[in-house]
Amino acid sequence: MSNFISEMMGTLILVLLGDGVVAGVVLKKTKSENGGWIVITLAWGLAVMTGVYIAASSGAHLNPAVTLSLALNSDLPWADVPIYIAAQLVGAFLGAVLVWLHYMKHFEATEDQAAKLGVFATGPAIRHTGSNLVSEIIGTFVLVFGILALGANTFADGLNPLIVGLLVVVIGLSLGGTTGYAINPARDLGPRIAHAILPIPGKGSSDWGYSWIPIVGPIIGGAIAVFIYQLLF
Amino acid sequence: MSNFISEMMGTLILVLLGDGVVAGVVLKKTKSENGGWIVITLAWGLAVMTGVYIAASSGAHLNPAVTLSLALNSDLPWADVPIYIAAQLVGAFLGAVLVWLHYMKHFEATEDQAAKLGVFATGPAIRHTGSNLVSEIIGTFVLVFGILALGANTFADGLNPLIVGLLVVVIGLSLGGTTGYAINPARDLGPRIAHAILPIPGKGSSDWGYSWIPIVGPIIGGAIAVFIYQLLF
Amino acid sequence: MSNFISEMMGTLILVLLGDGVVAGVVLKKTKSENGGWIVITLAWGLAVMTGVYIAASSGAHLNPAVTLSLALNSDLPWADVPIYIAAQLVGAFLGAVLVWLHYMKHFEATEDQAAKLGVFATGPAIRHTGSNLVSEIIGTFVLVFGILALGANTFADGLNPLIVGLLVVVIGLSLGGTTGYAINPARDLGPRIAHAILPIPGKGSSDWGYSWIPIVGPIIGGAIAVFIYQLLF
Amino acid sequence: MSNFISEMMGTLILVLLGDGVVAGVVLKKTKSENGGWIVITLAWGLAVMTGVYIAASSGAHLNPAVTLSLALNSDLPWADVPIYIAAQLVGAFLGAVLVWLHYMKHFEATEDQAAKLGVFATGPAIRHTGSNLVSEIIGTFVLVFGILALGANTFADGLNPLIVGLLVVVIGLSLGGTTGYAINPARDLGPRIAHAILPIPGKGSSDWGYSWIPIVGPIIGGAIAVFIYQLLF
Repeated sequence: MSNFISEMMGTLILVLLGDGVVAGVVLKKTKSENGGWIVITLAWGLAVMTGVYIAASSGAHLNPAVTLSLALNSDLPWADVPIYIAAQLVGAFLGAVLVWLHYMKHFEATEDQAAKLGVFATGPAIRHTGSNLVSEIIGTFVLVFGILALGANTFADGLNPLIVGLLVVVIGLSLGGTTGYAINPARDLGPRIAHAILPIPGKGSSDWGYSWIPIVGPIIGGAIAVFIYQLLF
Repeated sequence: MSNFISEMMGTLILVLLGDGVVAGVVLKKTKSENGGWIVITLAWGLAVMTGVYIAASSGAHLNPAVTLSLALNSDLPWADVPIYIAAQLVGAFLGAVLVWLHYMKHFEATEDQAAKLGVFATGPAIRHTGSNLVSEIIGTFVLVFGILALGANTFADGLNPLIVGLLVVVIGLSLGGTTGYAINPARDLGPRIAHAILPIPGKGSSDWGYSWIPIVGPIIGGAIAVFIYQLLF
Repeated sequence: MSNFISEMMGTLILVLLGDGVVAGVVLKKTKSENGGWIVITLAWGLAVMTGVYIAASSGAHLNPAVTLSLALNSDLPWADVPIYIAAQLVGAFLGAVLVWLHYMKHFEATEDQAAKLGVFATGPAIRHTGSNLVSEIIGTFVLVFGILALGANTFADGLNPLIVGLLVVVIGLSLGGTTGYAINPARDLGPRIAHAILPIPGKGSSDWGYSWIPIVGPIIGGAIAVFIYQLLF
Repeated sequence: MSNFISEMMGTLILVLLGDGVVAGVVLKKTKSENGGWIVITLAWGLAVMTGVYIAASSGAHLNPAVTLSLALNSDLPWADVPIYIAAQLVGAFLGAVLVWLHYMKHFEATEDQAAKLGVFATGPAIRHTGSNLVSEIIGTFVLVFGILALGANTFADGLNPLIVGLLVVVIGLSLGGTTGYAINPARDLGPRIAHAILPIPGKGSSDWGYSWIPIVGPIIGGAIAVFIYQLLF
């Protein structure tokens, strides 16, 4: 139960801060409007850092692709996997609800339906199933491979969440331009459900046709990372 | 007495650097004019980091919402609360006076009254009492919840002020676009009093009608964070 | 063999993230298009940080100029030098292939041949053999001198990769504006070969006439750093 | 003698990277042209961080105002003061010469005389002796007060140079917009001499009339910081 609460709260804060920065940049009349790519990527990385400090007691996966990869790598019992993933999805959904609450007046002030969906869920810059899937695979490969390498090093535990946050910053800066780097099924699915359910004024489609890519891509990318890591090291 | 001095100096430096960056970005003819949201949010976070290193001996609250939350969480005797809050208000007022001194010629070069008030006090992007209050509650909730989580972890003390600074960076990036993220009653009230008192050329209203929101919102947000933290962990 | 794998994987990730950010900023229709100099330099620095954490077991040179400098400084047996450099070149080539795969649709959407080459290889802002060589010498001098100084200090090992990453950030910010700061022969040659080989749509010349400068410059700069470091300290 | 070399090399690298970023942003045809205030301030802070790691053995003052303040605070024998300051001036001069060498073609491509001077020396956004002096006093007060507070804390030595670098980042972001934050007499005077001596094409005045402010202001600001720090703590 304490793992459930830890993963749920960590993912809630991760999504509140992560989806929050997108809202601040793409919605109308905010002080952070058009803040640019550096604002979005720095905030997502620090959102992960914050979530990791908060969820330290459960290992701070905050991401089903990480949970599955660590189970594959025998770092987590398979029986714990459903608990972790459920907690991550619930946390991501609740974080997205808080973003809606926080920016409510700015959703009202924004007409662009794609912008409003973009606060909650990722979408491709150029829609192409194969390429989009490859992007999510590569991005998550770097994330999980990096986490495995960090775990193998011996350094002050207190620094690790910061480094993981910076790893997410650079994945966003360098690989995020194609699909918006979900690299985390819960981060995309939980808020997409929130988008579908919440009474957001003038919202459009939740783009369910795309929604499987940020689920399947990260899971494949994480598995490849575990496989190559075990092969090489 | 040493706690009073520590909190006063820490908050003085926090506000000097925090209000200072706003002055640099919004006043006319500065080298940092129109520096953008990344400049403002990074500077506020590092301002907090600097204040925390300076006020380490008193625990570096620098914020009445943090002081009240820690008292609620039994981390501070209630008898110390008035001393801390008074020191924070005095420090914030003095820091704002230094900002006025530092940017005096640029206040003279600027006509926009809202910009001049914005150096000292926060204000809403879209004025709406309920939404503005909710924004300050959510922002401060993340701040205090994050501080409680950091305090529970065991890692090098020297890193903590940096991480708290980065936490303030991400709160600003992700949640600051609505109200300008006071998340600290002293940071808003002290400089607002300075704005009202100082002979700033061509200044307008100090917007006292809004001034209770960045006081009440952060206190509520901090209390909710303590309540949920105790409930869950 | 394990050193080969470590250097190869570290350089692969370094180039994937480093060339990746250039692709994201200069190719068309990405979400990170025109992200600016701060995006490019921050990402390159964090790319190095990530590569260093991954290649910790081999000392994480990731750069023939560093390998040769450390051999000159008697920190590495000369017999290991060919293994390290070969691994770095293979890793850099593979990293560039992944960037091509990741951004394939955006290469198709981009007409500018210089932009497409710029993803893979550095080029001068003002073409002038002497000045360009001097730029690469000075940039790599700072890199290697900094690494030698960091190695001489005694502080937590876990922090070192972050500091090296920040050193690369500042070299990029401050000295990168002239030649695009290769400061690493493998980072330039490996991806340039990939550019020459890969079926990139509408690609132009691989600019082999310039390619020796980002090889010779960094080697000279590193050697000067070792010489001065030994002379002074 | 080893203190001289340490301070000289640290200040050389500090000014190479610090003046280098200004060259990259203000000179014509660089890849970093118009990089913005975030690029300038982040690079100056990381330049200080790099210089501090390099000059660790001498305590890494790199700044006559810091040296005088530490002597005032009895942290340095007064007999060492001339050695430190001479080394800092020589290092700053040599660093500026390297910037000229590095960006030579871009100096040729730039007509604006103020921009070319701005690479080497600070200048006021609004020229006003009193206000400019106050700005340099306040900026250096924060620097020295922060350094004294950091020195009083007990945390991993390896982190200190990074924190000092971040302190310089925030001073730049928040207080640099008025005079360009010399906050260091050597950083301004050494390169100003280089500007006067070097055969920079189409250069204008070295603005010697202003040159005493970035010398006197920082010395006063540092002394006030020591005085208040001793009074309060």
